[in-house]
Amino acid sequence: MADKRMRMRELGVDPGGQPTGPHNAITDVPGILVGHTTLIRGQGALVPGKGPVRTGVTAVLPHAGNLFREPVEAAVFVYNGFGKSVGLSQVEELGEIETPILLTGTLNVPRVADALLDYIIEQNPAIGREVSRSPNFLVGECNDSYLNDFQGRHAGRKEVFAAIASAAPGEVTEGAVGAGTGMTCYGFKGGIGTASRLVSLAGRPYTLGVLVVSNFGVREHLTICGAPVGRELARWEQEQGLGARGKHPDRGSIMMVLATDAPLECRQLYRVCRRAPLGLALTGSAGGHGSGDYVIAFSTTRRPRAGCAPDDEAARLLRADESALDAIFLAARDAVAEAVWNSLTAAETLDGRDGHVRHALPLEETGKVLRKYGVLG
Amino acid sequence: MADKRMRMRELGVDPGGQPTGPHNAITDVPGILVGHTTLIRGQGALVPGKGPVRTGVTAVLPHAGNLFREPVEAAVFVYNGFGKSVGLSQVEELGEIETPILLTGTLNVPRVADALLDYIIEQNPAIGREVSRSPNFLVGECNDSYLNDFQGRHAGRKEVFAAIASAAPGEVTEGAVGAGTGMTCYGFKGGIGTASRLVSLAGRPYTLGVLVVSNFGVREHLTICGAPVGRELARWEQEQGLGARGKHPDRGSIMMVLATDAPLECRQLYRVCRRAPLGLALTGSAGGHGSGDYVIAFSTTRRPRAGCAPDDEAARLLRADESALDAIFLAARDAVAEAVWNSLTAAETLDGRDGHVRHALPLEETGKVLRKYGVLG
Amino acid sequence: MADKRMRMRELGVDPGGQPTGPHNAITDVPGILVGHTTLIRGQGALVPGKGPVRTGVTAVLPHAGNLFREPVEAAVFVYNGFGKSVGLSQVEELGEIETPILLTGTLNVPRVADALLDYIIEQNPAIGREVSRSPNFLVGECNDSYLNDFQGRHAGRKEVFAAIASAAPGEVTEGAVGAGTGMTCYGFKGGIGTASRLVSLAGRPYTLGVLVVSNFGVREHLTICGAPVGRELARWEQEQGLGARGKHPDRGSIMMVLATDAPLECRQLYRVCRRAPLGLALTGSAGGHGSGDYVIAFSTTRRPRAGCAPDDEAARLLRADESALDAIFLAARDAVAEAVWNSLTAAETLDGRDGHVRHALPLEETGKVLRKYGVLG
Amino acid sequence: MADKRMRMRELGVDPGGQPTGPHNAITDVPGILVGHTTLIRGQGALVPGKGPVRTGVTAVLPHAGNLFREPVEAAVFVYNGFGKSVGLSQVEELGEIETPILLTGTLNVPRVADALLDYIIEQNPAIGREVSRSPNFLVGECNDSYLNDFQGRHAGRKEVFAAIASAAPGEVTEGAVGAGTGMTCYGFKGGIGTASRLVSLAGRPYTLGVLVVSNFGVREHLTICGAPVGRELARWEQEQGLGARGKHPDRGSIMMVLATDAPLECRQLYRVCRRAPLGLALTGSAGGHGSGDYVIAFSTTRRPRAGCAPDDEAARLLRADESALDAIFLAARDAVAEAVWNSLTAAETLDGRDGHVRHALPLEETGKVLRKYGVLG
Repeated sequence: MADKRMRMRELGVDPGGQPTGPHNAITDVPGILVGHTTLIRGQGALVPGKGPVRTGVTAVLPHAGNLFREPVEAAVFVYNGFGKSVGLSQVEELGEIETPILLTGTLNVPRVADALLDYIIEQNPAIGREVSRSPNFLVGECNDSYLNDFQGRHAGRKEVFAAIASAAPGEVTEGAVGAGTGMTCYGFKGGIGTASRLVSLAGRPYTLGVLVVSNFGVREHLTICGAPVGRELARWEQEQGLGARGKHPDRGSIMMVLATDAPLECRQLYRVCRRAPLGLALTGSAGGHGSGDYVIAFSTTRRPRAGCAPDDEAARLLRADESALDAIFLAARDAVAEAVWNSLTAAETLDGRDGHVRHALPLEETGKVLRKYGVLG
Repeated sequence: MADKRMRMRELGVDPGGQPTGPHNAITDVPGILVGHTTLIRGQGALVPGKGPVRTGVTAVLPHAGNLFREPVEAAVFVYNGFGKSVGLSQVEELGEIETPILLTGTLNVPRVADALLDYIIEQNPAIGREVSRSPNFLVGECNDSYLNDFQGRHAGRKEVFAAIASAAPGEVTEGAVGAGTGMTCYGFKGGIGTASRLVSLAGRPYTLGVLVVSNFGVREHLTICGAPVGRELARWEQEQGLGARGKHPDRGSIMMVLATDAPLECRQLYRVCRRAPLGLALTGSAGGHGSGDYVIAFSTTRRPRAGCAPDDEAARLLRADESALDAIFLAARDAVAEAVWNSLTAAETLDGRDGHVRHALPLEETGKVLRKYGVLG
Repeated sequence: MADKRMRMRELGVDPGGQPTGPHNAITDVPGILVGHTTLIRGQGALVPGKGPVRTGVTAVLPHAGNLFREPVEAAVFVYNGFGKSVGLSQVEELGEIETPILLTGTLNVPRVADALLDYIIEQNPAIGREVSRSPNFLVGECNDSYLNDFQGRHAGRKEVFAAIASAAPGEVTEGAVGAGTGMTCYGFKGGIGTASRLVSLAGRPYTLGVLVVSNFGVREHLTICGAPVGRELARWEQEQGLGARGKHPDRGSIMMVLATDAPLECRQLYRVCRRAPLGLALTGSAGGHGSGDYVIAFSTTRRPRAGCAPDDEAARLLRADESALDAIFLAARDAVAEAVWNSLTAAETLDGRDGHVRHALPLEETGKVLRKYGVLG
Repeated sequence: MADKRMRMRELGVDPGGQPTGPHNAITDVPGILVGHTTLIRGQGALVPGKGPVRTGVTAVLPHAGNLFREPVEAAVFVYNGFGKSVGLSQVEELGEIETPILLTGTLNVPRVADALLDYIIEQNPAIGREVSRSPNFLVGECNDSYLNDFQGRHAGRKEVFAAIASAAPGEVTEGAVGAGTGMTCYGFKGGIGTASRLVSLAGRPYTLGVLVVSNFGVREHLTICGAPVGRELARWEQEQGLGARGKHPDRGSIMMVLATDAPLECRQLYRVCRRAPLGLALTGSAGGHGSGDYVIAFSTTRRPRAGCAPDDEAARLLRADESALDAIFLAARDAVAEAVWNSLTAAETLDGRDGHVRHALPLEETGKVLRKYGVLG
């Protein structure tokens, strides 16, 4: 009876027209690993500290090595700072990421950060002994309080280590998994989404990949490939007597992780970050007050401390004429939008605490809207 | 033979669905005055310093009084800093605007700024005598070198004083006028555009108005109300043998001036500024490297030095729960997009130096695309 | 044999010449409470997870009420972002602080932040239920790994609740207490320091108070009231055969908390924050790469959500002519410097892990240097 | 009768103890050229537009080639944005400087910027023809209204071309010359000052040079090498019946230009910029509201568009461990302070409009203070 869930392109659309990587995922950037821990436990009335639990952890590893010893060049951009992500100021100052990037529900952040320290210390036992430098724990979050026992902070050490241990290249599970478990996007079930684009620099192919945790937006604003899907579905829901579904507080956020193997410097990565909100706009966002929107970007091939400062054709081209970034800007915008859409088409309906339910985006009706607006032939 | 030019809504669309002010213009914010000086002189081959001249000046006055004595609370946001606007750092530091805002072609900026000093000094002859404080000349620009004798810098004192003298409330002329004279938007003739939205705060109506100088974008990216107008028109032009029209360097920029009579503090105005790029995204922008994108916002009712610090219902509401800003964020996004579209529907085809021509957006064909994509019934 | 410790002014100096509040402490700002939990346990070789423990927590409460319901207007300034403080981006976005400010050793941050959530949730049990907004945990840190079992992360819930419970007005204990327990400043024992200044605005007295955790600086750079104390003491230590004392990695940081009852807006508080590094410079800082330097400032009398938006004489003066801030800028600079100096004159010699010792600033020798350079008559 | 003017070190002090370059000037960085145009004309009552004229232009050329074709890597830091410098946002966005850096009196900025366009266009006649990119005119300023016919804006094309034409390596004239002609520093005659430091990176010597236009500060705050020179001189002036001298509005500013041949990236140059205010603090600054303080830094050896991306030992060291920047941070702080002091020791007493006089720092009395405070033996 429920829709079969799918990726957005399986609806028949090709947003933006640029080629994607083989998995259309952030893991198309060589070396990147993604892992999830998903916690779905209990049902019924909220008992803080017990459940129901609808939360999780997602880990994005820029490479499989020791990141504390071999950081990657990076940048962050805070589009709307109404959020609790940690680890930002050091990325801004030094232009590098030195731990896995962890994503989770808001109130889990401290426990997840503490577990991330465990992980880094186990890998680098000299910290606090011979090495006085401390790891810059980087943890992003969205608010999963609508479905989840928020106060309970159920994600910690076990969940973090499991997410990192399960991190792998290749396909990335999307929807209500990992950090996306309890999330809501445009009033539908949201969560993890990913996408990628291939770009050509100096005649060589590079990849730009995106992974988002989607948890923002007002139902009526949802737009897919230009079609006013949210408005049309709200009307349809009214007609079906399902109008209450769309009612929800717009207290969301979005975490956007961008990765590339192109040899971008941190200033250039920062410029790429700033294009991510344009992708959000394509999905309908009006930049709600309550939405903490954070963008993190890194280059897997630029690892300053390890002596990796590519001076290849692409790096030279970008220095000589930075308009070569335009292809990457476009890729960032489009992959951010598609990742959000993927989070919606993949996520299944999920219930949570106190009878709260987030319904999946109805794909059949969505397809009708896309046809009505000429997106599908 | 040429299309009759019109405002975007005359095509039959109602972007966003929120009500506009009576003129759907920045001048719907009470007290604001707008004036243009348009320079269109000469034809044929470029003779630097002579012509052809396709440039101008647009003046936006936050109020009709002495702005140097009675500044308005303000904010700026540099979305893409690849541009030559002047006067930004003081607005960032002090949160106020103390001169008319002037807009012009890039290389005119110094001459226009010097003329703005003339104007302020004439109004405030004590400057440099009893008053040591100097005026913060605020001038924005876009690059009009495709049509115009760029090196010639033809806008100066005479043009600035004329623009200010002609500044008036009410309807605002759009398209190839004032600062918009030589501009190009998505490969079509662009220039000045304006729009407004009514918003309700604490039960009282307020207005958010926008004026843009549009000079950015890649033809294929132009989007109107979700419809891929640029892509479809590019195809149509190919079919008509007009393919060369769309060829143009994407070296543009956009100046966005936002105004409101809602009593926003500079931090809140800054947050409004940051939503403006979402409006650009609705028109198709991918945030091109070469596009210097600047946003300026001010509140006409908050004039700190004059003792105007409204503590009315709206101000209290915004302090108690800033999510009341959401209505203004939405208005800013939608009015920015509509102002860009208005600049395109209003602007007529214009030729310039060396046989260069910028063709007007073909409205009849545009209407066809809007119908094809379900935007028009 | 050891020096009796004292406050800096007891040496006979009067840095800056402006009057201080009655306690020359951040608590001179009415309503502010400060509490410490100090952990000094064990000796000898480091056993990670066991000890020796030299760390702690300091809590600064802007007022005694429910901060989550009644936040104070605030700003942060990251002078050197090489640090792990959490909670910054939301202060930047919304201009308010909504929890106690906690300070601790670097690796404790997540556990302390988690305990801060416990505290806020206990005070506001509707969080995650009726209230979807989550608390913005604000925790600052410095690196105490030289003396302390860094990996052990010994400060958590118990220590946080104790620090908050003990928070009180009046005198503030300085030196190796609370968050300052394990800290090093200019190679001497550092830690907590505080100071205040009285300023007059519109004929009414206001207070500017500062509390720092000092953990930065190169021995030779230490300057007190202009005298090159570090250089002279280094020479003296050489002569005494104590040269090894000054050898230490410059991997420090400084947290600076500024408070005032003057009705400053967040933009103005931000400007005050930016003057804090000038105070550091007076103590000799050259802004070392490894020093994460963070400034937090708030106004106790401006509480936007509670309807407190003072429109008194001082507020009007600051709007009419912001040069009235000069008195506060000067107070901020001087109080930051004196707070650092107080942290040095108060702190006693402390040993820690692996035989590491941080020696107290030798006050008698310091007095000699101050006399040599005419600071003391 | 007047003091012979000199450089600060000729008083016998050695601020900071680090070695300087051969000229102790910004021109010690190989390739840098500095030129001044000084306008001193007329006396007596101010007749706006006529005089008396006490203004000028200073040009700093990062190299002798075509900067528009071969920009240098750069950064800017606005410490206090209450100023009218132009050209900042593009440096922030792209990390490069593409014109000579011009410094002048505040109201001259537009005319000087227009003349800079003349210069760049003459060198690059394809601008606005084959080349659509426009030059980012970078002009800094301080307010010289106390002595000068401010409204008259006497520096323009002739003065700019003369300053650039006279730009040379080697010794730099300091004091009341060029942009410094009409400036006031701590109530004394200020203006141009310069200094340099040698630093060692990876065993190779590099130079950090500074040039300032000093025009800020309150008399009583002036500090030299830790000694309270301003306070003592104010007392002395009182005793001499010269008390009125020190009375002056603190409406100043300071422009700081930092240059190095070390291969710093723009992020690193930005970090260097941020240390400049620490140097100001050493001279006594409390960061006055009215003082627009701007820092510009560039690397002469990193020229991205020209393919110069040094990957030498120093660049590798800075990537592997950025604490190598500490030597440059210290150099920046100390050279900024010394440049300010040099501006004071070099500048001669100058009268201006309406009988206004700025007295030179009295060197003999200054020497006495330095001896009193143990700075001089």
